[in-house]
Amino acid sequence: MAHATIEWTANLAGVFDLDALMRLIANQMRLHSDGVFPTGGIRVRGYRVDDYVIADGACDEDAFINIDVKMGAGRSAAFRKVFFDALFDEIRNFLGDLFDRCPLALSMYVEEVEGWKHNSIHKRLKG
Amino acid sequence: MAHATIEWTANLAGVFDLDALMRLIANQMRLHSDGVFPTGGIRVRGYRVDDYVIADGACDEDAFINIDVKMGAGRSAAFRKVFFDALFDEIRNFLGDLFDRCPLALSMYVEEVEGWKHNSIHKRLKG
Amino acid sequence: MAHATIEWTANLAGVFDLDALMRLIANQMRLHSDGVFPTGGIRVRGYRVDDYVIADGACDEDAFINIDVKMGAGRSAAFRKVFFDALFDEIRNFLGDLFDRCPLALSMYVEEVEGWKHNSIHKRLKG
Repeated sequence: MAHATIEWTANLAGVFDLDALMRLIANQMRLHSDGVFPTGGIRVRGYRVDDYVIADGACDEDAFINIDVKMGAGRSAAFRKVFFDALFDEIRNFLGDLFDRCPLALSMYVEEVEGWKHNSIHKRLKG
Repeated sequence: MAHATIEWTANLAGVFDLDALMRLIANQMRLHSDGVFPTGGIRVRGYRVDDYVIADGACDEDAFINIDVKMGAGRSAAFRKVFFDALFDEIRNFLGDLFDRCPLALSMYVEEVEGWKHNSIHKRLKG
Repeated sequence: MAHATIEWTANLAGVFDLDALMRLIANQMRLHSDGVFPTGGIRVRGYRVDDYVIADGACDEDAFINIDVKMGAGRSAAFRKVFFDALFDEIRNFLGDLFDRCPLALSMYVEEVEGWKHNSIHKRLKG
């Protein structure tokens, strides 16, 4: 099970491709985790942030993209480092020269959680 | 104090009753926690998710409902297991055959937090 | 690096000044943390909550404002207590008599996180 949540400031509308970024993250989890993240448990979503204050609040072009990842406990520290280093590099590459075109803060946080679940997507995938 | 946040994908609009699900969670906290969750501290909200990629991104009918619970630290492990097992069962029952009607991932996570608070709802309840 | 997220129920629209509250939090982090929070890493956002159930669900005037703070690990417990006590007091003062005018639950939670980041806002600030 792996969740990712992308928050992005509204001044980035039309500047980057949200759907492509969501697919990048989902595909990285699906194809490059050696099966650590079962496909049926991958859920990536994006929230547009319309109201925000960044840094000193002095520059309308300041922007941020923040990604919160939640996953089940038990993955090794070694796996986490390799996988998320690679994921973050992919995201940076995806954004390309956006960091030069506007003042942009990109962040990604990873949290382990335990919980309850029930899921019929696995069945669809086997079907 | 108990917070719950329901995220639900937009393709479930009209398919389940968000308000009823929020009330189910609030009522379970209020009426079935032996007073562990004071009524005035119960806050349940729902966020519709319009942008998302699920699993392999291949099926428009894939959907998810994710519930994040935050509560003050100090509840016993025994209470947590009994209460949240029961809550999750209620939610599954509430959703009924929705798991058969579409590929649906339901998840619930519980986190303990400490913080600051000031609350005049308790006074309204006593009033 | 410091993130703050304000959730506020829609029945508070026009009742408090979201932008001023976001600026209050950003300024407190920037000007009253002895440099603990670098300016370029401050990100405050607000989300309006349209769907919610509060307490016993019996009073349309029940409202909440919830603030989640995320910051890098390593700040001392002493700093955290002093800084966030002061921040919470500022927020309470800012809201003034709103607690008397409606049943209102205010909460603030602080979490330490570790993650990945890349940020060109620092350069804008130096520029």
